[in-house]
Amino acid sequence: MREFELLKHVYASNPRLGSRVEVPPGDDLAMVRLDGRNLLAGVDQLVEGIHFKLNTTPIEQIGRKAVARSLSDIAAMAGIPIATLAAVTLPADFGSARATALFDAMRLTADAFHSPLIGGDIAIDPQPAARLVCSVTVLAEPGHGGPVTRGGAQIGDTVAVSGSLGGSFKPDGSGRHLTFEPRIGLARSLAGLLGHRLHAMIDLSDGLGRDASHIAEQSGVTIMIDSGRLPCTDGCSWREALGMGEDYELCFAARRPIPREIDGVPITIIGEVVRTERQQPHIALVRDGDRAIPVNELGWQHTS
Amino acid sequence: MREFELLKHVYASNPRLGSRVEVPPGDDLAMVRLDGRNLLAGVDQLVEGIHFKLNTTPIEQIGRKAVARSLSDIAAMAGIPIATLAAVTLPADFGSARATALFDAMRLTADAFHSPLIGGDIAIDPQPAARLVCSVTVLAEPGHGGPVTRGGAQIGDTVAVSGSLGGSFKPDGSGRHLTFEPRIGLARSLAGLLGHRLHAMIDLSDGLGRDASHIAEQSGVTIMIDSGRLPCTDGCSWREALGMGEDYELCFAARRPIPREIDGVPITIIGEVVRTERQQPHIALVRDGDRAIPVNELGWQHTS
Repeated sequence: MREFELLKHVYASNPRLGSRVEVPPGDDLAMVRLDGRNLLAGVDQLVEGIHFKLNTTPIEQIGRKAVARSLSDIAAMAGIPIATLAAVTLPADFGSARATALFDAMRLTADAFHSPLIGGDIAIDPQPAARLVCSVTVLAEPGHGGPVTRGGAQIGDTVAVSGSLGGSFKPDGSGRHLTFEPRIGLARSLAGLLGHRLHAMIDLSDGLGRDASHIAEQSGVTIMIDSGRLPCTDGCSWREALGMGEDYELCFAARRPIPREIDGVPITIIGEVVRTERQQPHIALVRDGDRAIPVNELGWQHTS
Repeated sequence: MREFELLKHVYASNPRLGSRVEVPPGDDLAMVRLDGRNLLAGVDQLVEGIHFKLNTTPIEQIGRKAVARSLSDIAAMAGIPIATLAAVTLPADFGSARATALFDAMRLTADAFHSPLIGGDIAIDPQPAARLVCSVTVLAEPGHGGPVTRGGAQIGDTVAVSGSLGGSFKPDGSGRHLTFEPRIGLARSLAGLLGHRLHAMIDLSDGLGRDASHIAEQSGVTIMIDSGRLPCTDGCSWREALGMGEDYELCFAARRPIPREIDGVPITIIGEVVRTERQQPHIALVRDGDRAIPVNELGWQHTS
């Protein structure tokens, strides 16, 4: 079962979203209009065994990641946080102390990004092997220039990423995927600096290859990534930087000039937006030596 | 582990909700202010084995209930729906066809109440015994008179309910809990008719006894319910009408006169708001003959 395909079906079959929906589902967040004001909203889930290991991860880091993942979607739209809501399914033996610690961590993370936790729901799953699942909804406002979507990349744009990629999820379950900063401030700075030259953006959760392909597909273009330019985390190959995911950095398409850093975070140019060749899908390709390899042929599994 | 207690702790320890939060968590929905406009938001979960039986319930009714439950919280505040977001955790063997049917049902229900499904997330739980969980967030606007909270009941108010109570969840899993109408239109009519005389409202998910106690606690009063006046569903005792839950009718406290019906749905006066006796908790009591029984002594288990 492919999440992305399924959601696409559901949304494609929905002609009645109504005139209020300014950005339909399928982007990092959707946008609805409220009498002249716009509201961004989206939901994401953090699932034990997929996004974290329960036995080896401090509860505080689980709660933090649950909220930070959804906040990262606000960054992807260059939005300004408003509020957070969390629904949690707990195994029956989880216990009140850990449940409290989990909600406290979610609340503190939400507060730190000025997105207070205003709603919550807890359900207990009596199955002994039940998994912990946190579902986090975030609400935000677009910035002055409007939301930055996945669909605005133009042929000739430069493609760049923040930070370094790969190695975020270590085999023992630890790593940067638990401690990353949602790039909300960086995205706002970038939108302020580039203005209307900032055409499309996404946060890197599935991995640069897949996420850049989302921009390509939504924009009707091809994104050509240069393997030699990828800002790989120490010890990571370009294939790992492209495919491992859980980086929560930003990838964007914009007209030059592109700043070399923002707020102390390096910005690296990794490729460009080109016209899709006839009969080919709108996707990201990675240029390695003489070859241009479609990222969907690099053999990653879609895990969530 | 008591959901209500845990959430109360989490919210009580949060002094930093900020000046934007107009109605804090703990009501049916929270409310945040956006430059002069107010936004209501809340999240609720539908859990297999607690809120429905997977084997005997058509997928369409599961998706419908997941959304209708959250829409019922909008009714409780007399709000006007804006949009819906759904996150679903599926057992690995659920299959694409059923997943599509589930999302289609959620989308159609959301559309029917003018609250389009603008966001979704799907996670697959690889455990063979994994349970289906739907987490649904709703966004709404308050009506002209502002939101109707749980906290405004005043001594001398009349307490009334819509529809009939009890017998919603039949032993085989079927029943009105799968087919109820969220009382959004009725709540709007009631707010329009009563205006500022409508002081407090809640939707009946946990059961009238517990839900009326939420109004009592938040308002700092006692609610005295007359067992003989309860509009029991055919075949239900007053204890069942008070305790079974899943009615999704409205219970409200208001100054008289109270209409006898709204939009064809009967409205029944069931009691009154009185001063809490010294040293006693703010709770609902049920008067049966000469006795006034605190509803928390009637022995219901809190299931979700």
